[in-house]
Amino acid sequence: MTSELLNIIRLRLKRRKLDALLVTQPENRRYLSGYTPKDTSIQESSGTLLIPVKGTPFLLTDSRFLLQAEKEAKGFKIELYQRGLIFLLKRLLEQFSIKRLAFESHYTLHSTATTLINAAEKVGVEAVPLTGLVEKLRSIKTGTELKKIQRSVELNEKVFQEVYKGLYPGQTELEVAVRIETVMRKMGAEGPSFESIVAGGPNGAMPHAVPSGRKLKKGEPIVIDMGLILDGYCSDMTRTVVLGTPDGRTVELFRLVRKAQLAGIKRIRDGVAAKEADRAARDIISDAGYGAQFGHGLGHGVGLAVHEAPSLNRRSRKKLKSGMVVTVEPGIYIPGWGGIRLENMVAVTKNGCHVLNKDTTFLDL
Amino acid sequence: MTSELLNIIRLRLKRRKLDALLVTQPENRRYLSGYTPKDTSIQESSGTLLIPVKGTPFLLTDSRFLLQAEKEAKGFKIELYQRGLIFLLKRLLEQFSIKRLAFESHYTLHSTATTLINAAEKVGVEAVPLTGLVEKLRSIKTGTELKKIQRSVELNEKVFQEVYKGLYPGQTELEVAVRIETVMRKMGAEGPSFESIVAGGPNGAMPHAVPSGRKLKKGEPIVIDMGLILDGYCSDMTRTVVLGTPDGRTVELFRLVRKAQLAGIKRIRDGVAAKEADRAARDIISDAGYGAQFGHGLGHGVGLAVHEAPSLNRRSRKKLKSGMVVTVEPGIYIPGWGGIRLENMVAVTKNGCHVLNKDTTFLDL
Repeated sequence: MTSELLNIIRLRLKRRKLDALLVTQPENRRYLSGYTPKDTSIQESSGTLLIPVKGTPFLLTDSRFLLQAEKEAKGFKIELYQRGLIFLLKRLLEQFSIKRLAFESHYTLHSTATTLINAAEKVGVEAVPLTGLVEKLRSIKTGTELKKIQRSVELNEKVFQEVYKGLYPGQTELEVAVRIETVMRKMGAEGPSFESIVAGGPNGAMPHAVPSGRKLKKGEPIVIDMGLILDGYCSDMTRTVVLGTPDGRTVELFRLVRKAQLAGIKRIRDGVAAKEADRAARDIISDAGYGAQFGHGLGHGVGLAVHEAPSLNRRSRKKLKSGMVVTVEPGIYIPGWGGIRLENMVAVTKNGCHVLNKDTTFLDL
Repeated sequence: MTSELLNIIRLRLKRRKLDALLVTQPENRRYLSGYTPKDTSIQESSGTLLIPVKGTPFLLTDSRFLLQAEKEAKGFKIELYQRGLIFLLKRLLEQFSIKRLAFESHYTLHSTATTLINAAEKVGVEAVPLTGLVEKLRSIKTGTELKKIQRSVELNEKVFQEVYKGLYPGQTELEVAVRIETVMRKMGAEGPSFESIVAGGPNGAMPHAVPSGRKLKKGEPIVIDMGLILDGYCSDMTRTVVLGTPDGRTVELFRLVRKAQLAGIKRIRDGVAAKEADRAARDIISDAGYGAQFGHGLGHGVGLAVHEAPSLNRRSRKKLKSGMVVTVEPGIYIPGWGGIRLENMVAVTKNGCHVLNKDTTFLDL
């Protein structure tokens, strides 16, 4: 953890009269410590950070992760739990006179929190739920992070191009999805940032369609939504492509979605409310009579997680800030017919935004 | 959901004077409803079940998942939330006169639970934390489930053989890991059940090693831990292999770990405490002086999740029961030198257990 980052966190804790912060959210943990393991699930943590207002921060983990923890978590003291996190924690809380301990309420299971609150109480410590402190820091990217994200986007586009070149009618959605992941890994990605979506024809009407055995057909819109992880950072891009010649309706809706995307991008800049960007894109689609067919938000932040703060939708209460990286992904979904979604990532700047994607495949039909 | 399963759940709810159960845990949701979407993370649910003691059970989701929900969740009424789960829930609780609502404390975030408890209170409903009810049912597999798991294990072994044949000195761990995933998907798996471990030489000393750019060397032990998902069901297998001739120490430790594994398998049967099986294997390793180098439990349940109930370790309080499927995976880890782990899956039976793995690669050195 950079000392700058450590100081910011300490300041925010002090302001809330908190003596320490327990970090359980895996991307937050990586962001602060450099410790890279993922968690198999929220029930199986590969470590927790304990950041006191004073003194060295700790990484608490078990023996399976000791070597990796020592290698990666620079500036952290590693403590191993043999009898579970809570037992070790009780000792550390006493040792460092921590009286008010914040925990990540949004990434602690209710059952775990109950155990923690009760155990803390027994040693005179108040466990205080806290939400989004580290996420808020993560939402503004440093120059180094922006470079990593840019590289992730570039590799994702290369993978897309390789896969796109190989598309043919009769290929199943699942075959394309497998190929995406294979090519990703061959080209050096750590893995996909989410399960790729390949949805042809009517299947495209499900924004979160799961690739099926259905064969791709000439002329139908095919939604491909894919992303990868490179050096810990995620990318996320959607293209809708057609094999052969798109019909009139497809072209019309394509142009409409692209127009909405450009309107959204145009509205994005430091200081603008996230919901305003959503509205700029949504108005275009609503005015054309397809408002009800655009059922999701305009976009979301991307970084160490593929979905992170801020959200861009009608209910967003956050303002966009310089250094944020967000997706702009309007779509139109028509049950029985199919869907069209176009998604690019942009970095918010003082005077607008910088589009991270260069790929223009079927973007300006 | 089979009516038998529904009845068991209703009975257990009634016994606790509960009017309904909210199911948020993704594998529990799939187990009960057949609805297959995975959740990107615990913060992004693709649906929640509401199972009242009387009447039709509900699947609550959003419009993105409507088509898939209708297709898969037979016997469930689909309700869409537009303004979030809590808002919809309040209406349903009132409509069906639910006064005591159980929620899965072990798969509900503390922040979400707080919102739920407060919202429920406002409409005169008590939200009651509950843990493991569905997991307990899931731990005993039906005949159909056992067949699916067996097929998952068989495919995983085929993939392993294909990858094993292609191993050569100089290949990196990462190359092998990528190959594992590629071959899996080519052979028809939905995907890996966890991130494959390929750890050569000293890297093998980390039980949860992440595949690196390190090149495999002749003569060193190489730990390969891999599993896949087929028709929803997971497999999990570890082999430690050597390219060329293993040295004396390797052979000695191999034999010791295998002896421990066989002792564990021999102890497993209906009615035996899980910790007894752990002890049977652990005693062999401890007696040989390597007790401290076997830092994890003997095994875990496998089914829709790759890690599920029961746990087999020193602190386990559960008894093994006929129909459970568990791993038996002792290991010895020596920092600076490497590790050896051997893992098979077994199905517990009345009089012992049935080993699901047939692969014997480097098992009986």
